[in-house]
Amino acid sequence: MNYQVEDDSLSLHTDLYQINMAYTYWKDGIHERNAVFDLYFRKMPFENGYAVFAGLERVIDYIKSLQFTDSDTDYLHTIGEYDEGFLQYLKSLKFSGSLRSMKEGECVFANEPLVRVEAPLIEAQLLETALLNMINFQTLIATKAARIKTVSGDNVVMEFGTRRAQELDAAIWGTRAAYIAGFDATSNARAGKLFGIPTAGTHAHSMVQAYKDEYTAFRKYAEAHKNCVFLVDTYDTLKSGVPIAIQVAKEMGSRIRFAGIRLDSGDLAYLSKEARKQLDKAGFHETKIIASNDLDEYTILNLKAQGAQIDMWGVGTKVITAFDQPALGAVYKLVSIENERGEMEDTIKISGNPEKVSTPGKKRVYRIVNRTSGKSEGDYIVLEGEKPYAQKKIKMFHPVHTYISKFVTNFEARDLHEDIFVNGELVYQLPELSEMRRQLRGSLDLLWDEYKRILNPEAYPVDLSEKCWNNKMELIQEIKEKTEKRLGGHHLKEENKE
Amino acid sequence: MNYQVEDDSLSLHTDLYQINMAYTYWKDGIHERNAVFDLYFRKMPFENGYAVFAGLERVIDYIKSLQFTDSDTDYLHTIGEYDEGFLQYLKSLKFSGSLRSMKEGECVFANEPLVRVEAPLIEAQLLETALLNMINFQTLIATKAARIKTVSGDNVVMEFGTRRAQELDAAIWGTRAAYIAGFDATSNARAGKLFGIPTAGTHAHSMVQAYKDEYTAFRKYAEAHKNCVFLVDTYDTLKSGVPIAIQVAKEMGSRIRFAGIRLDSGDLAYLSKEARKQLDKAGFHETKIIASNDLDEYTILNLKAQGAQIDMWGVGTKVITAFDQPALGAVYKLVSIENERGEMEDTIKISGNPEKVSTPGKKRVYRIVNRTSGKSEGDYIVLEGEKPYAQKKIKMFHPVHTYISKFVTNFEARDLHEDIFVNGELVYQLPELSEMRRQLRGSLDLLWDEYKRILNPEAYPVDLSEKCWNNKMELIQEIKEKTEKRLGGHHLKEENKE
Repeated sequence: MNYQVEDDSLSLHTDLYQINMAYTYWKDGIHERNAVFDLYFRKMPFENGYAVFAGLERVIDYIKSLQFTDSDTDYLHTIGEYDEGFLQYLKSLKFSGSLRSMKEGECVFANEPLVRVEAPLIEAQLLETALLNMINFQTLIATKAARIKTVSGDNVVMEFGTRRAQELDAAIWGTRAAYIAGFDATSNARAGKLFGIPTAGTHAHSMVQAYKDEYTAFRKYAEAHKNCVFLVDTYDTLKSGVPIAIQVAKEMGSRIRFAGIRLDSGDLAYLSKEARKQLDKAGFHETKIIASNDLDEYTILNLKAQGAQIDMWGVGTKVITAFDQPALGAVYKLVSIENERGEMEDTIKISGNPEKVSTPGKKRVYRIVNRTSGKSEGDYIVLEGEKPYAQKKIKMFHPVHTYISKFVTNFEARDLHEDIFVNGELVYQLPELSEMRRQLRGSLDLLWDEYKRILNPEAYPVDLSEKCWNNKMELIQEIKEKTEKRLGGHHLKEENKE
Repeated sequence: MNYQVEDDSLSLHTDLYQINMAYTYWKDGIHERNAVFDLYFRKMPFENGYAVFAGLERVIDYIKSLQFTDSDTDYLHTIGEYDEGFLQYLKSLKFSGSLRSMKEGECVFANEPLVRVEAPLIEAQLLETALLNMINFQTLIATKAARIKTVSGDNVVMEFGTRRAQELDAAIWGTRAAYIAGFDATSNARAGKLFGIPTAGTHAHSMVQAYKDEYTAFRKYAEAHKNCVFLVDTYDTLKSGVPIAIQVAKEMGSRIRFAGIRLDSGDLAYLSKEARKQLDKAGFHETKIIASNDLDEYTILNLKAQGAQIDMWGVGTKVITAFDQPALGAVYKLVSIENERGEMEDTIKISGNPEKVSTPGKKRVYRIVNRTSGKSEGDYIVLEGEKPYAQKKIKMFHPVHTYISKFVTNFEARDLHEDIFVNGELVYQLPELSEMRRQLRGSLDLLWDEYKRILNPEAYPVDLSEKCWNNKMELIQEIKEKTEKRLGGHHLKEENKE
């Protein structure tokens, strides 16, 4: 039990194979060659029409403090595979490269680089696991939360999932992601302290148990608190919980604000309608009805369709674990690398599965906004140096089914990436969370409604420029020829002389 | 962006309602009344026949260091609901209670207390969220991992999921849970450093890309590393990857140990069989075949059924997120509380759903081991003070379908809980992880095979002693009578005078 190490760092929060590759590069002397990696996912989570990017704050902190400590290299030493010189090299390592990224709260899509890292090969490689770990999770939760926010409309939505989160970080960073995506509050007090997210919560069934009856429990709560929300389903919601809540509120008068009642079981549609009647009849028109109990976007949509009188939603397990799809499969692929002559060479990962073929080259991503409609025509990936913003007309075409194409004119091409690190220096000032929330609303405003349905949305176009597409096709061809040559007739020994 | 607070603590890692209840109790002066809470889950995760308890180490550290700091109370102050006296009280708070718990690596079952907390009401209440957060996740992953280990038998199984884990803690504590449950290694280097878990990993496709062909990549890797596992599926596994791996191994001779090849795509059954032939033909009988790519217990079972020649399994997403059921629903229920006369009174949470009714009273859990068969007859929950170990014969009966019953004689009654904290003092020495792994193997040995199938296992008996069962029935009756009295005819005002 030695896990509380004084000089612990996150530098070893990586797959061991990254270290083993780093060692290979170091031994071979190619570790400082310039390399470009793209981080992207291939499939929309929850089959949603868009995803919401999150995780950048955590990534920035991780990179800023990336530094192998004594305990890190001592540990690597115990593996017995590495030269002392390599461990010393690791100890001196700092991130010296450049990183461009989507903003947190940006709508993002499959197959476009969310993050682009350009750095000495060894540094870029060492970042992979941690970046994926942070961005996969936070983007996943932000996207799930955005779906829930979509169906709840103007209602308040609160994140209540800490107890079911996948350990502590997930609770904290997950609720932050949900907040970026439009949730209004969290139950996690530490997230309130650390991030300034509004916190919410009143009492549990255990308080009614501790006082043995609802009246005493509500009364004692009201004597301690100005703002009161009573949990009314311990015994019988309509016959006991709601009437007693009303009674206590009447007794307390202006000493409290009878902010709401919470329903946590039973038929929430029926109970909320009946509770609303009781509250209204007693004159508590402003008292809100809050629902919780295993809610997600589907249940909320159904309850609303049934006319449930619910003003606020407490969502836990389903959002904090992204229950119906608890992992996002973002990957991190090498797209360009310096060769022995000091020139950059684009590189591709091919696969029998066409969707798994990467897009080579150092690239940029633009959102093409139609100035007439004010809506986005799609995202447009170009090779570094292309200037779509200076063009009058661009051809956008499907990167696989290329006959699907359109010419766009009168557009604005918005660069979606921000410079975060430039040559090792942090040049980005992270905005407030409120700004990220605005970012998302603005980003969603650019999307036609067809992309925003929670069921069967249209596929948003993510296209390659002709140059980018041609570059990809040429590399595929080249690899195919090389592979065929290697596999055909030639003796292996000969082939390896290449 | 103020989340890196110098005096940050985990004391606020709780739902705000816990603080609001604590405040109510404090204002009312009942906060130091003795209370007993049980932590348990109601449904077996993955419909498995058993679960594997994990999370205790984290719980111990959390409780040991529980201490509200200035930044914690400063934050609570900003909420504007709490007296200064309460905040001062919180600051002075330390855990002064007692906690009994299952050992990590113990087989546990639905509806038995995994953890029992007895403490002043306010302390016990404040622990709820964090304990659930830790134990829910770690027990979930340990159970998922045990399922995977069950089907993989004597094969080595490695946890490779960091990049898909739900943030950083989940990667670290998840892989530790998997290791307790029988996994053999992790890819996460920091988990290796912190917990002493063996680490594994060689190289990724990106290394082949960086070197532009497999031969150069494998060769460079082999020049840097003694132990070599080559990833052979970048271009064509059988025509290119495996032959080139063999070629490099032959060239390097005794300078390397050709430990294995890794397959990460394609039909793993077919490819492994063909690769095995090639390796054997070349004389590499000891070289292992390692498979990865979205594996879980179902895929592994199927691959084995098809005669796949796979020696080692790398499992990622599916284990580290418990993909098919990413949350365990453990709850924390008040079962007994001191009344105004200083006596303990048992308490129950009733529900229209019979499975949600809690079992009142301060209890102990025994495993009833038949001395003849050496197998467990079931778990047996008794009220504190009952001594099943001193009995010659006990009656075990189903707590709902009570006609299902048996008498057991010639048994050993093993107390499943350890004292962890006694009156605030940590009295437990956490064993090494190797001991927890042994614990699980021993625990599984007590179970008949019918509980260990991954599909449709039998339900293991978790029974109540007659005394415990009667106590529960009496309390249900009492609550029912009180509720009926409250809801029937009586004027609310009158009823509340009770």
